[in-house]
Amino acid sequence: MRFDEAYSGKVFIMSREDGEAADAVIYGMPMDWTVSFRPGSRFGPNRIREASIGLEEYSPYLDRHLEEVNFFDAGDIPLPFGNPQRSIDMIEEYIGTLLEKGKFPLGLGGEHLVTWPVLKAMYCKYPDLAVIHIDAHTDLREEYEGEPLSHSTPIRKACELMGPEHVYSFGIRSGMREEFQYAKESGMYLAKYDVVEPLKGVLPKLAGRPVYVTIDIDVLDPAFAPGTGTAEAGGISSKELLEAIHMIADSDIQVVGGDLVEVAPAYDPTEQTVIAASKFVREMLLGWVK
Amino acid sequence: MRFDEAYSGKVFIMSREDGEAADAVIYGMPMDWTVSFRPGSRFGPNRIREASIGLEEYSPYLDRHLEEVNFFDAGDIPLPFGNPQRSIDMIEEYIGTLLEKGKFPLGLGGEHLVTWPVLKAMYCKYPDLAVIHIDAHTDLREEYEGEPLSHSTPIRKACELMGPEHVYSFGIRSGMREEFQYAKESGMYLAKYDVVEPLKGVLPKLAGRPVYVTIDIDVLDPAFAPGTGTAEAGGISSKELLEAIHMIADSDIQVVGGDLVEVAPAYDPTEQTVIAASKFVREMLLGWVK
Amino acid sequence: MRFDEAYSGKVFIMSREDGEAADAVIYGMPMDWTVSFRPGSRFGPNRIREASIGLEEYSPYLDRHLEEVNFFDAGDIPLPFGNPQRSIDMIEEYIGTLLEKGKFPLGLGGEHLVTWPVLKAMYCKYPDLAVIHIDAHTDLREEYEGEPLSHSTPIRKACELMGPEHVYSFGIRSGMREEFQYAKESGMYLAKYDVVEPLKGVLPKLAGRPVYVTIDIDVLDPAFAPGTGTAEAGGISSKELLEAIHMIADSDIQVVGGDLVEVAPAYDPTEQTVIAASKFVREMLLGWVK
Amino acid sequence: MRFDEAYSGKVFIMSREDGEAADAVIYGMPMDWTVSFRPGSRFGPNRIREASIGLEEYSPYLDRHLEEVNFFDAGDIPLPFGNPQRSIDMIEEYIGTLLEKGKFPLGLGGEHLVTWPVLKAMYCKYPDLAVIHIDAHTDLREEYEGEPLSHSTPIRKACELMGPEHVYSFGIRSGMREEFQYAKESGMYLAKYDVVEPLKGVLPKLAGRPVYVTIDIDVLDPAFAPGTGTAEAGGISSKELLEAIHMIADSDIQVVGGDLVEVAPAYDPTEQTVIAASKFVREMLLGWVK
Amino acid sequence: MRFDEAYSGKVFIMSREDGEAADAVIYGMPMDWTVSFRPGSRFGPNRIREASIGLEEYSPYLDRHLEEVNFFDAGDIPLPFGNPQRSIDMIEEYIGTLLEKGKFPLGLGGEHLVTWPVLKAMYCKYPDLAVIHIDAHTDLREEYEGEPLSHSTPIRKACELMGPEHVYSFGIRSGMREEFQYAKESGMYLAKYDVVEPLKGVLPKLAGRPVYVTIDIDVLDPAFAPGTGTAEAGGISSKELLEAIHMIADSDIQVVGGDLVEVAPAYDPTEQTVIAASKFVREMLLGWVK
Amino acid sequence: MRFDEAYSGKVFIMSREDGEAADAVIYGMPMDWTVSFRPGSRFGPNRIREASIGLEEYSPYLDRHLEEVNFFDAGDIPLPFGNPQRSIDMIEEYIGTLLEKGKFPLGLGGEHLVTWPVLKAMYCKYPDLAVIHIDAHTDLREEYEGEPLSHSTPIRKACELMGPEHVYSFGIRSGMREEFQYAKESGMYLAKYDVVEPLKGVLPKLAGRPVYVTIDIDVLDPAFAPGTGTAEAGGISSKELLEAIHMIADSDIQVVGGDLVEVAPAYDPTEQTVIAASKFVREMLLGWVK
Repeated sequence: MRFDEAYSGKVFIMSREDGEAADAVIYGMPMDWTVSFRPGSRFGPNRIREASIGLEEYSPYLDRHLEEVNFFDAGDIPLPFGNPQRSIDMIEEYIGTLLEKGKFPLGLGGEHLVTWPVLKAMYCKYPDLAVIHIDAHTDLREEYEGEPLSHSTPIRKACELMGPEHVYSFGIRSGMREEFQYAKESGMYLAKYDVVEPLKGVLPKLAGRPVYVTIDIDVLDPAFAPGTGTAEAGGISSKELLEAIHMIADSDIQVVGGDLVEVAPAYDPTEQTVIAASKFVREMLLGWVK
Repeated sequence: MRFDEAYSGKVFIMSREDGEAADAVIYGMPMDWTVSFRPGSRFGPNRIREASIGLEEYSPYLDRHLEEVNFFDAGDIPLPFGNPQRSIDMIEEYIGTLLEKGKFPLGLGGEHLVTWPVLKAMYCKYPDLAVIHIDAHTDLREEYEGEPLSHSTPIRKACELMGPEHVYSFGIRSGMREEFQYAKESGMYLAKYDVVEPLKGVLPKLAGRPVYVTIDIDVLDPAFAPGTGTAEAGGISSKELLEAIHMIADSDIQVVGGDLVEVAPAYDPTEQTVIAASKFVREMLLGWVK
Repeated sequence: MRFDEAYSGKVFIMSREDGEAADAVIYGMPMDWTVSFRPGSRFGPNRIREASIGLEEYSPYLDRHLEEVNFFDAGDIPLPFGNPQRSIDMIEEYIGTLLEKGKFPLGLGGEHLVTWPVLKAMYCKYPDLAVIHIDAHTDLREEYEGEPLSHSTPIRKACELMGPEHVYSFGIRSGMREEFQYAKESGMYLAKYDVVEPLKGVLPKLAGRPVYVTIDIDVLDPAFAPGTGTAEAGGISSKELLEAIHMIADSDIQVVGGDLVEVAPAYDPTEQTVIAASKFVREMLLGWVK
Repeated sequence: MRFDEAYSGKVFIMSREDGEAADAVIYGMPMDWTVSFRPGSRFGPNRIREASIGLEEYSPYLDRHLEEVNFFDAGDIPLPFGNPQRSIDMIEEYIGTLLEKGKFPLGLGGEHLVTWPVLKAMYCKYPDLAVIHIDAHTDLREEYEGEPLSHSTPIRKACELMGPEHVYSFGIRSGMREEFQYAKESGMYLAKYDVVEPLKGVLPKLAGRPVYVTIDIDVLDPAFAPGTGTAEAGGISSKELLEAIHMIADSDIQVVGGDLVEVAPAYDPTEQTVIAASKFVREMLLGWVK
Repeated sequence: MRFDEAYSGKVFIMSREDGEAADAVIYGMPMDWTVSFRPGSRFGPNRIREASIGLEEYSPYLDRHLEEVNFFDAGDIPLPFGNPQRSIDMIEEYIGTLLEKGKFPLGLGGEHLVTWPVLKAMYCKYPDLAVIHIDAHTDLREEYEGEPLSHSTPIRKACELMGPEHVYSFGIRSGMREEFQYAKESGMYLAKYDVVEPLKGVLPKLAGRPVYVTIDIDVLDPAFAPGTGTAEAGGISSKELLEAIHMIADSDIQVVGGDLVEVAPAYDPTEQTVIAASKFVREMLLGWVK
Repeated sequence: MRFDEAYSGKVFIMSREDGEAADAVIYGMPMDWTVSFRPGSRFGPNRIREASIGLEEYSPYLDRHLEEVNFFDAGDIPLPFGNPQRSIDMIEEYIGTLLEKGKFPLGLGGEHLVTWPVLKAMYCKYPDLAVIHIDAHTDLREEYEGEPLSHSTPIRKACELMGPEHVYSFGIRSGMREEFQYAKESGMYLAKYDVVEPLKGVLPKLAGRPVYVTIDIDVLDPAFAPGTGTAEAGGISSKELLEAIHMIADSDIQVVGGDLVEVAPAYDPTEQTVIAASKFVREMLLGWVK
């Protein structure tokens, strides 16, 4: 043992040392300044990394081991506190660089607005991109109390950028009446309450297409993920979310990137949310990065 | 903006200003002095109000918006600490006034004993009243260690007042042997463990009748509602309780009042219980107040 | 009331005073020094006892009352901090004494390694013993970072002692690839993810045999039992674990002992885990001690 | 080691087995039903016992060891939930029995009202009794919202029973204007804010007299004892309370009993309050029981 | 009791009903979007109000009762999430209206940046205004990572607006080297670590002048106020802060407004911080509003 | 910004990249397997690092900035769970390597036993070493329940190795009678309760000598550091510990290494302990590494 090689669990378990050689890159987006209820998801990425120490590196679900996925944990993007516009620009530029280098981007939030600049960069590279959006909330507002840059607007922006017919939402159980009307009239796909059953119908239709998958941890019932800003009773279980991740892995779609957002450790005294999140990240790595 | 009109989230979200004009009235019953295990439900009503700030005002389940229900949040009844008898008398009188004015009473507990004086007032107005009781516990004791006024006795008292054949209990998974025997022999209805399936059978039988619905939050598994005094493992999920509320809303019974009791914030560090409770209250308002 | 007879909830509810006359003995094994992630299960047994005060003494599931089971709560075995070998020896000797006296041993952990010395003593008395192992983790390692005495090894050791064909694992969702391979190749039984369904198939095969049942609380999803060292998302519910306990009680196997391990109160701020655990212990007593 | 002799930390550390032979008796008074703010002190006595496991048995302050004090922990008096009058009667009777047998009573609360029946019994035996009352609150109300039996009234009742000139309050920093006026006009002694300095003046005056000492944990600043129902900023430190206990021990008064009340574990997530309380109890035993 | 007059603790204890007639107005500024470490102070004002229920209405320190101060709690200003500039503009306008009407403004934060717009409005009315700033942090940055609107800049902005010689900081124990240099060179007053002693020297110099007093709760050691975003070890005690408030009350300065900021309930599981804060607010009302 | 250079707060704030060139090295010793009460200090080092993000890099106490100290955070030594002997051997070897390379060792615990192997390595290099030991506990046991390798023994072992006359303990307020007797008879220095005053007397005597300083966080009162395994009421304040660190920095002794041990995040829900600890580490770096 050399004195400067002590293990410290600084990064997601089994992250490689060489970023340039990696196939996939994990990065944090520690932003929570536009949330309307309980802030704190800025600390999500680092606590997910920390909790990964308790994970096995092997998945019995997928019969695959993290040593089979060449990934690099790059840490958090240093976003400027309280400035949504500059934060978004930095994220878009960062993802652009990753995509240029051919990396699979796997992001950790932070509030859901971070997905918006990621999608802009993804869509630039993949003009036929589709989005799978797993969430308790529609996130289809045009603005939130006058602010177009809000954690309530990213999916609406995605619809406007890519065309609503390429956006597929699952597990939705909260939103304004106007958002549900927009979903119905715009031609986007929206499945209320459930994830697994509707996914079974949608995945075959997306076969062969590049797809970005964004998961808001609050799609889970607060029983399974209390550590989130806007908890919403009546959600799915961890078992169901695992099944959804595995169905996506086993389908014929081409996953080209993904994220897990809205983990807020301040409301997670038992650490159960970050522990579950770190397992979801492991399964996303093992199932989606080929 | 006038200086004295700042929003403060002091009441349940979208409470109207004019109590006299309202169709329904929310009121708290901050009493917990007869509980045998962990006290603290006296703080339940105010924390449920506070958590309502995080709610959408629209329900995608019922396709209805809180602006369609004219309700008033009256605050908490100022019950005297440590005096069960006087507390009960005050509640009965308070509900009597509400009913005289034709209001729909929607109560927030507080321990379950608060339902007893409410039922006395309701029965006085509706002699053909039936009670739907959703709970983990039988609450059928005649007394608790010598005390007839106890959180373990309200449903027994209801049976004695109204006749056991008008009382319907659901989700029950804890009680003394004598309580289960009483339930069996008295002719009341008692469904063990489950709520949704047995409700399907009972609701048609109550068609057209005035019904009071009392929900003890501990019918939920502690995973979904840890913030309660007497948590009891093996309960239903938030999804199932939402379904029960919606089934009642869609049935042909005439809901004439209801309550949600036993929310105890001291055992709810993540706020998941009060957040779920505020959603249940929203659905009760939207589904039961026509 | 004599002054020295005040009730204090020092022991599991309804424990008898006379250990010699009891049919079953509850004992704690407050050891957590080999765990690899979050320690603290040494405090599990006493908090389970404390939480038992909130329990009814009657089970509506089994229609049986604790007064029908003559049991004695002996307290915790005074294990030496930080010394796994001596701790294991003390436990083995303690169980040996219990078995000599014809007591049904019901142990409370403590980390899962405590089950290893119990099994040694049980196997000595019952050479045709089978083991039912309900857990999230395989616990089939040969060693953990060089240590053969580890919370990751007890089931492997049991396989080696008794023959793998007498070991039945349920609910498993985490382990090394090598452990799952061992399970497959050795001839032991291992059911992934589920407990209730696979138990239905296994119980008839064990009819008439003496069986020891060890339950690791982390077989539950962290939603139901956050208070454990190595929480693992995607588990079963409290309802399912109750059903498993009841199926075992109703089967034709001869339960000769059991334990419930890995309850760690430091991660249980709502006390929901210890409250659930105390209910499981009540059902184990009522269902398994004839 | 006999199987039924395992140590379990059920009682205060080093409690003797034989109550009849003991010089001092520890007993809990788990009552909290008249409190006006945050209930939960009913669980105080058992958590103080549990925390005592972490204590050394020797005090470097007093150079005395618990083996030098023959005491017995009798557990909690089984008080009836929600019934203040019966609870008070039971406590008075219990203390009466203790005093008849010549035991030194050391009580653990519970709310402060429990001190009232203790004082009645003490005064009956010691007609020249004085009371040292260490607390943040005056507790001098005649009634609380119409209730004469309230946690806000015990010291007033003591004044009325024994004469205000025999009551000495220290550390007081909260109360109604009328209470402070009563203190001034009645002739009782009341030291605002501080404890140690005023005690120095008072102790010599009480030399030779029998004195009962009641300590409300909320005399400490909430920094030192957050786990109490009615925390009051601006209090003394643990060091100062220890000094007060030691000054009383070293004085020429004859301590004939004492209590420590209002420890409420639900507001004590770090256990710092119960840990401190268990140390205060050790020092009271070592310093006051000769 | 009319049905719509139930007490609910919605506002600070003893707030009057009539805002127009009040001498002083309490208002919340629920903003936390520029903080660099732990957000959550947006919930501070409402939790301080809630905790005020546990307060006595009389202060033994000042021998004054809340019924002697005619104040009105106006609730929270509805600030737009994530938009610092608009939030600041709203606050400035709000305070302007208050001052026009001759009200004494007493603000509850929220992050410390909220004090900046308040000072702009105060300075406009009182050109000879001085500021007493009690805090752990200098808050003298010109910008924070490029953002001039940050919780680290309000006092610098005050210096630039009013002249540094009118700004007096106390209790400071954290900041950049450049901030301490600015303090030294600019001519402002800065007392490191302590509050009470330096105040004794400063108050006479400010005699007769209008003074605004801003208190950041983190001037307290985290032992006394853990519930704040940027806790800083080595601070003063609650007793010392009370003494400072009382010294200001007893001095010859003319307090024309004040605030208490940075209370963040998410880091306050025992509620000790909000309980202490509500007491400080009571003393500010009783001592500063003549 | 390169994609692989994102900041992630993985190490103590301002740690340099190049370990070989550093003057001082921070390393964690995540061991807690011999503790007798509440385990969990294994997670201390990483939480202290994480909390350092909230620190300023400049100390107004010492007028020095972290950029003036060339240090490297090497992470945690990978100690084997549950094996005290191997853990101790690894630490001794690790420190040996550090000292060979001329680094100043600054260790983070972990339980206090980790200091023992550090002292062995230090003494080997500095035969005239003295030890300053700041702690609530004597740690002078010869063994703990038969185990010589225990968190209660490191200072005794140091006395035996180096001679008791070279060991100086401060702040001690808990231990066995035998330990205090040993301290008195052996010739070591032991100051009860206080730290600052006795240090003033001792430091001049140690002028010019190489001194290792070990700080157990539990020397603080639990009000200031609840997050520790064996909290002990009646301790010093954070202000006093800062003063002690600064006095040592300003003295004429030659500090040759130091550690801060026993931080246990599981008992620190507000993070106040890790936040304070990270500040102490900053001051140790700035004051002791010349």
